[in-house]
Amino acid sequence: MSQHRVIASYLIETPYSLAYAAEVMAGEQSTGTFVAVPGETPELKARHRAAIIHIEELDEMSEPSLPNSVPPAGEGNLIYRRGLVQLSFPIDNFGASLANLMSTVAGNLYELRELSGIRLVDIELPGSFADRYPGPQYGMEGTRKLSQVYNRPIIGTIVKPSIGLPLDEYGPLVRSLAEAGLDFIKDDELCANPPYAPFEQRVKTVMEQIERAADRTGRKLMYAFNITGDIDEMKRHHDIVVKAGGTCVMVAVNSMGLPAVAHLRQYAELPIHGHRTQWGAMTRSPLLGMGFKAYQKLCRLAGVDHLHTNGLNSKFAESNEGVVQSIKDCLTPFLGGYPIVPVLSSAQWAGSAEPTYKAVQSTDVIHLAGGGILAHPGGIAEGVSSMQQGWAAAASGVPIGDYAKTHPALQQAIQTFGKAHN
Amino acid sequence: MSQHRVIASYLIETPYSLAYAAEVMAGEQSTGTFVAVPGETPELKARHRAAIIHIEELDEMSEPSLPNSVPPAGEGNLIYRRGLVQLSFPIDNFGASLANLMSTVAGNLYELRELSGIRLVDIELPGSFADRYPGPQYGMEGTRKLSQVYNRPIIGTIVKPSIGLPLDEYGPLVRSLAEAGLDFIKDDELCANPPYAPFEQRVKTVMEQIERAADRTGRKLMYAFNITGDIDEMKRHHDIVVKAGGTCVMVAVNSMGLPAVAHLRQYAELPIHGHRTQWGAMTRSPLLGMGFKAYQKLCRLAGVDHLHTNGLNSKFAESNEGVVQSIKDCLTPFLGGYPIVPVLSSAQWAGSAEPTYKAVQSTDVIHLAGGGILAHPGGIAEGVSSMQQGWAAAASGVPIGDYAKTHPALQQAIQTFGKAHN
Repeated sequence: MSQHRVIASYLIETPYSLAYAAEVMAGEQSTGTFVAVPGETPELKARHRAAIIHIEELDEMSEPSLPNSVPPAGEGNLIYRRGLVQLSFPIDNFGASLANLMSTVAGNLYELRELSGIRLVDIELPGSFADRYPGPQYGMEGTRKLSQVYNRPIIGTIVKPSIGLPLDEYGPLVRSLAEAGLDFIKDDELCANPPYAPFEQRVKTVMEQIERAADRTGRKLMYAFNITGDIDEMKRHHDIVVKAGGTCVMVAVNSMGLPAVAHLRQYAELPIHGHRTQWGAMTRSPLLGMGFKAYQKLCRLAGVDHLHTNGLNSKFAESNEGVVQSIKDCLTPFLGGYPIVPVLSSAQWAGSAEPTYKAVQSTDVIHLAGGGILAHPGGIAEGVSSMQQGWAAAASGVPIGDYAKTHPALQQAIQTFGKAHN
Repeated sequence: MSQHRVIASYLIETPYSLAYAAEVMAGEQSTGTFVAVPGETPELKARHRAAIIHIEELDEMSEPSLPNSVPPAGEGNLIYRRGLVQLSFPIDNFGASLANLMSTVAGNLYELRELSGIRLVDIELPGSFADRYPGPQYGMEGTRKLSQVYNRPIIGTIVKPSIGLPLDEYGPLVRSLAEAGLDFIKDDELCANPPYAPFEQRVKTVMEQIERAADRTGRKLMYAFNITGDIDEMKRHHDIVVKAGGTCVMVAVNSMGLPAVAHLRQYAELPIHGHRTQWGAMTRSPLLGMGFKAYQKLCRLAGVDHLHTNGLNSKFAESNEGVVQSIKDCLTPFLGGYPIVPVLSSAQWAGSAEPTYKAVQSTDVIHLAGGGILAHPGGIAEGVSSMQQGWAAAASGVPIGDYAKTHPALQQAIQTFGKAHN
């Protein structure tokens, strides 16, 4: 990797040649337009212009993916060409800055009328970014130490109903979850500092119950408190969690922006649980926005320790192939490390472990289940056991049906959830 | 408007009934799922559940706009129904918080597989948001006072080449622009604190030249310095601009995130020029992301004084109808005020004034032109004059061809740019 350039890879679609479209992109995001202006010397262009380093032709389409592209004049039947384009940008143009990286590699590209599709799919960064942004402080190793969970996934849940539960009901519920052997609870992304249950009181209530449960179980449940809010508020809430003995904070990365998360990372004393709410807006149109491979690198740079990826067979629109690739992306080192923990959720249960392990060959994940734990017919503790047993079976290569013969919690989970989910 | 609820309007597309899809949306973004869980009492739902307040049927499509929606089982030929859905959310669920507003009104909706299209088109907010976020500090009135421009648009440009010009060439160029009578220059969104021209030196160089020009012209050009960067860096750079006598700072709103902009607003002593780079990713797919009507309200809440809208007949993909509506949205009061200045740019020249004024009936805009000023055959000062004359003609209802007969700068502009642009 060049020490002086950022490489960005795009999936594009254009009614022009791919080469021409790539030139437009390179010009728009660096030294300017096609029209020569005074001062735009050959030397300046050599130093500062974005370079096209690779173009790969893909399909040809008869219809544009996005509206309002303006095709070349005078052509007959239009073809919209899809391709992969790699551009490199001199780091001297903007420096190691997350916000200005985004203005450069994404920027105005999405509005170019020479393109009928444009998606940022990957980025490679020079070491100066690593010098400036320390990245995840805890990763899997630190999270395991804090939650005292080894050799298996961290099993967690979300308290339901996610909104509106009075604190005098919320506290005992958290305690029963902690006493049932759960490792982890995350706040709902909708619940941060609501007037009906102000943050400071909520932390106090929750941590009292977690400490009492820990006295009994010998292990402190990790609770990711949602500190999403204004910049100063986020700091205040982080400090409240630390003071109360909490072990994790959560932010909605896209509601905050990357610089806000990097700011949190500067003073954070706890792992940062990154929720990706609004991510669908950035990724669901296949020829627009951003792919997860690029996104998760940005989150790692900003300092996120845990990042949501969805789980297999979830209730959301993403395909299983996409989910598997996202988990693998998180498990792949970046800039020589930057370890981030993928968080699997949505319609998960004990049986989700087997296909997940087969696909990603790792237990270094946080696995969240709602109904798959809370609605287990044997109760919450059996629900938790069923999840652990599902992963034990998967990791040892024993089919869960066989493993379940000697593990009743798993057996009950299969009977209860197996039909609905498979 | 309710004092206790946020109203969000969506354009959706679904293979289900609109009523069913709206229920899924309301559930996902408030009290939870369709499955009843212990604690989700009728009282809790009455207090906290999002309400469907309006559904309007639009077209029916035979193909889905977005991939991976999962239609109801067992149906024959699928119809994808489009409609407008209005939901209201109790403010008690999340409080007056920009970040948590986004997690609520946008959030996971984009990932719902019951939807094949989902776009946030408008929001209405209770007064508690106005109490928490003071909004634009300067607006048009304050910007006019600082730049001493009255009764016509503020005419500005962007220095080209936008990247790479050494400071010893940049300074004199700014001075010649200021002495030519320009009101306003903005940094390129690609240029904030690049290693080849560090921010502090850049401000020093630019402000020296602006002050010297002001000594001669009696009027200080407003220069929007791009302070996009990390949270602390943004504050440091703001302070550098203030100390150097600058009169405007600029941020790339989407590269920073709304909370970062609101944070800047807390200490800002100058107007905030809001660039919307990356906006295309949020809006170009017609059935995804966000419409500008909603977006500009969020920017106003965060405290942006100037917001880019594109200009008519620009080089970007947006239609002229979209541009006109965006300008009108900015000129419409919000929460009883929150005045924001639309910034028109891209392929603009003197002749852009007439159709713009006809469409929006206002001169309360910042009008940026690059080539339309810098490439005027009479020189930069004539280029600036031509822009002012174009607006004078438009505002007085005189066709520019007639007005040009007694205004040679405008005449030359029409001869030079008229054919290329019309």
